[in-house]
Amino acid sequence: MLVLSNEEIERLLTIEECMAALEPMYRDVAEERVLFSPRVDNIAPNAHPDGYYAFKHMGGTWPREKVQALRINSDVVTHPLVAGKPRRVKQPLANGRWVGLVLLFSTETGALLAMFPDGVMQRLRVGATSGLGLRHLAREDARRLALIGSGWQAGTQLSAALAVRKFREVRVWSPRRESREAFVAEWRGELGATIGAVESAEACVEAADVIAAATSSMVRVIEPRWLKPGMHVSCIKTQEVDAEVLQRCDRVVLSNRRQAKHYDNVMKDTPNVKAESARGWWNDGSVRVDRYPDLADVLTERAPGRDSDREITCFVNNVGTGLQFAAAGAYVLARARAERVGTELPDDWFSEDVHP
Amino acid sequence: MLVLSNEEIERLLTIEECMAALEPMYRDVAEERVLFSPRVDNIAPNAHPDGYYAFKHMGGTWPREKVQALRINSDVVTHPLVAGKPRRVKQPLANGRWVGLVLLFSTETGALLAMFPDGVMQRLRVGATSGLGLRHLAREDARRLALIGSGWQAGTQLSAALAVRKFREVRVWSPRRESREAFVAEWRGELGATIGAVESAEACVEAADVIAAATSSMVRVIEPRWLKPGMHVSCIKTQEVDAEVLQRCDRVVLSNRRQAKHYDNVMKDTPNVKAESARGWWNDGSVRVDRYPDLADVLTERAPGRDSDREITCFVNNVGTGLQFAAAGAYVLARARAERVGTELPDDWFSEDVHP
Repeated sequence: MLVLSNEEIERLLTIEECMAALEPMYRDVAEERVLFSPRVDNIAPNAHPDGYYAFKHMGGTWPREKVQALRINSDVVTHPLVAGKPRRVKQPLANGRWVGLVLLFSTETGALLAMFPDGVMQRLRVGATSGLGLRHLAREDARRLALIGSGWQAGTQLSAALAVRKFREVRVWSPRRESREAFVAEWRGELGATIGAVESAEACVEAADVIAAATSSMVRVIEPRWLKPGMHVSCIKTQEVDAEVLQRCDRVVLSNRRQAKHYDNVMKDTPNVKAESARGWWNDGSVRVDRYPDLADVLTERAPGRDSDREITCFVNNVGTGLQFAAAGAYVLARARAERVGTELPDDWFSEDVHP
Repeated sequence: MLVLSNEEIERLLTIEECMAALEPMYRDVAEERVLFSPRVDNIAPNAHPDGYYAFKHMGGTWPREKVQALRINSDVVTHPLVAGKPRRVKQPLANGRWVGLVLLFSTETGALLAMFPDGVMQRLRVGATSGLGLRHLAREDARRLALIGSGWQAGTQLSAALAVRKFREVRVWSPRRESREAFVAEWRGELGATIGAVESAEACVEAADVIAAATSSMVRVIEPRWLKPGMHVSCIKTQEVDAEVLQRCDRVVLSNRRQAKHYDNVMKDTPNVKAESARGWWNDGSVRVDRYPDLADVLTERAPGRDSDREITCFVNNVGTGLQFAAAGAYVLARARAERVGTELPDDWFSEDVHP
């Protein structure tokens, strides 16, 4: 059983490799050669004065790569206001650290093959999925990228966009100046494009060909008036857009319209919970979600991508799946074995000699 | 993060302790102070000529003990005929071993506290649950126990029964002579009762006060004609009894009527699958399952236990839950820490310094 660290995964998996690993998985999604598990969230009271406990898990089975993934998040969640808007923030209370784990199993032998923290792969698979959408939906000649958000997810949204289009200019805005400037300082010189932080969302999106939102916002961050013909809009949470935004788009593609249902188990009397699954347009009937194709449809040409330079397109990274971790995980595991990276633990610790 | 072995758990958890650990959890079930996760089974094709891959997981949140459990089974399953009857058999293909794991998390910090194989705890919690049922449903003066089955589950059914009633005689029958005789040889001298293997099911149940089934049978193993006034019947799978058996009983109690739904995800074209969730009376409407109380009801006096020496009672251990592992797991973890048992691994391997 191989234990990998975030640092090791970062070395073993580029955004381009992650896209290449995910693409055949999405094709198998269209062919029904995969299994989703329903995503389950257990939400219960704990002793935190402003928070609660949230346990999430999602599985994915991908026989082609002989892999079963289970991704687990065990968090204490709070909902602070940041710059006046509500966010969902996980508190690092495990000795100052967060707890997100991926387990990979063999569908051939049942063995637990690997365990690793989810953080680096989590943002790579989000970025890679948005990048696959962008490849099929943004104009070929897109040159200006507006990035809304400068946190953990923003980096892979940026690198995925740069992997599929030749952007010349990137503008970054997020509510906190120190955050957006730190982000720009980190990326300056790393790109074949200029990058700069701007003072307002309006300055960020002005003349943009692509607007990519990468926030933890619980409310809309893309304004409908920003959308212009030929533009592509990308978001990583359904809450970042709303019915008004979607109605201005000529073509909307979801990351996933097939994920098994999402189960929220909320214990009675849990304090502080702010409607985890209140997704507005996703649930409230204001948008005909069932009419939207998804990435699997587009990759297998069951649904078209962009078909004119005038279209406004939108890619909604609507839900994460365990299958993304199965696909990226199988790739990382193969590379880790080939390069002898990681810490091997005795298989006997994670198996047994009695029929369970 | 503490890794425990089956052998260590066997030393740390007796059947009596397991019953004591589970009882307050069942009381909290009645008070809705727990969360079940839906049990999910992903079933998909693999290369096994007669089998398929089955990935099962079930969670349970128990704030009183500050614990979240997730139990995972990753198996290659076949359905051989044994003595002419179909069984569900997990093949030990992970270097000759099976893969069943329990993960325990803190609901206060999110931390992964422990990982261990599920086998020993699995049979203890099944036995302990049947024992709690037996305590409230069997006659106080029950002296003769008929045990149908002599495999992995039979031992804890036996020890749980002996923990709650003063049995004088135990008769064991299972289809294979070598199996039942090995079982009797293992237990002879361990009990305050005589124990013997018999040649037929009829000889086993003759004059029994309690019949306990402990099989992996996919079809009925308890015959309706065996049921006599004053008898208690116990089974560990719904398939061991059927509507005809249940209709002869005056009082039926389930282990759990509240478990969140069971989701079978079966991939198209999976060969060899024999209807995992075909549970007969449990699903087919032939029995009014919704009328049966469960152990949580009985332990909190929302439903009565046995109320006369003439009643025929039945306890159906209808489904396992992640909560059983939360309760038994919290107890074992506390003891392991107190006695410094197990292998400590670095917490940093199972947590991260990035917001996932």
